[in-house]
Amino acid sequence: MSKNLEVSTLLDFYGQLLTDKQREAVEYYYNDDLSLGEIAENLKISRQGVRDSIKRAETVMFEMEEKLGLVKTARQTRKSLDSIRKNIDIIDERNMKIYRSDAINESIKVILKELETLNNND
Amino acid sequence: MSKNLEVSTLLDFYGQLLTDKQREAVEYYYNDDLSLGEIAENLKISRQGVRDSIKRAETVMFEMEEKLGLVKTARQTRKSLDSIRKNIDIIDERNMKIYRSDAINESIKVILKELETLNNND
Repeated sequence: MSKNLEVSTLLDFYGQLLTDKQREAVEYYYNDDLSLGEIAENLKISRQGVRDSIKRAETVMFEMEEKLGLVKTARQTRKSLDSIRKNIDIIDERNMKIYRSDAINESIKVILKELETLNNND
Repeated sequence: MSKNLEVSTLLDFYGQLLTDKQREAVEYYYNDDLSLGEIAENLKISRQGVRDSIKRAETVMFEMEEKLGLVKTARQTRKSLDSIRKNIDIIDERNMKIYRSDAINESIKVILKELETLNNND
């Protein structure tokens, strides 16, 4: 069974939509790098059961991504937030070195806090 | 059948997860304000069929929101983006009136463009 590195990411977004068994199997396999045999032992199901759970979970998550596109959107969001952060740093540096405006400084602080909140939303 | 105003919003986020019939019925009912009888005629199914489709669609979407929370996250995101926009405007005004820094002006332009992109992500 080949490992698709995308699955770990999908799990962050769609893990809640899986059954407990599916989620546990996928986490063991992709995040903890256990073998199918080890997972079978942990979950007290057959090796084939583990394989089926993982395959089913992958199908569910890829279908959800096809329909909702949360991973794709999150990547675009990340790029935009990084760009905003970079440009806020430029403004901050200019302000600190040259203009020393308290009003600008206050606004920068608020924006940095909001960016932190947005980064944690992912 | 009582109308839940939240459903229109849920439809924006989870409409892709419904069957065509469910989505059409919900759109007619919540967005176009048609009666069950009118929807039944349009979809060529019974009034009870329309009612069942809408109820099922609502259940699916509320369950998805319970698990994925996209509407809730989008509201928090909106608040943060509004706050960033407001504070960028403050910086912009100060810069325009007092400091006239081209570098700050350039960074503000980039940030405004990114904010526009992020607002369209919703």
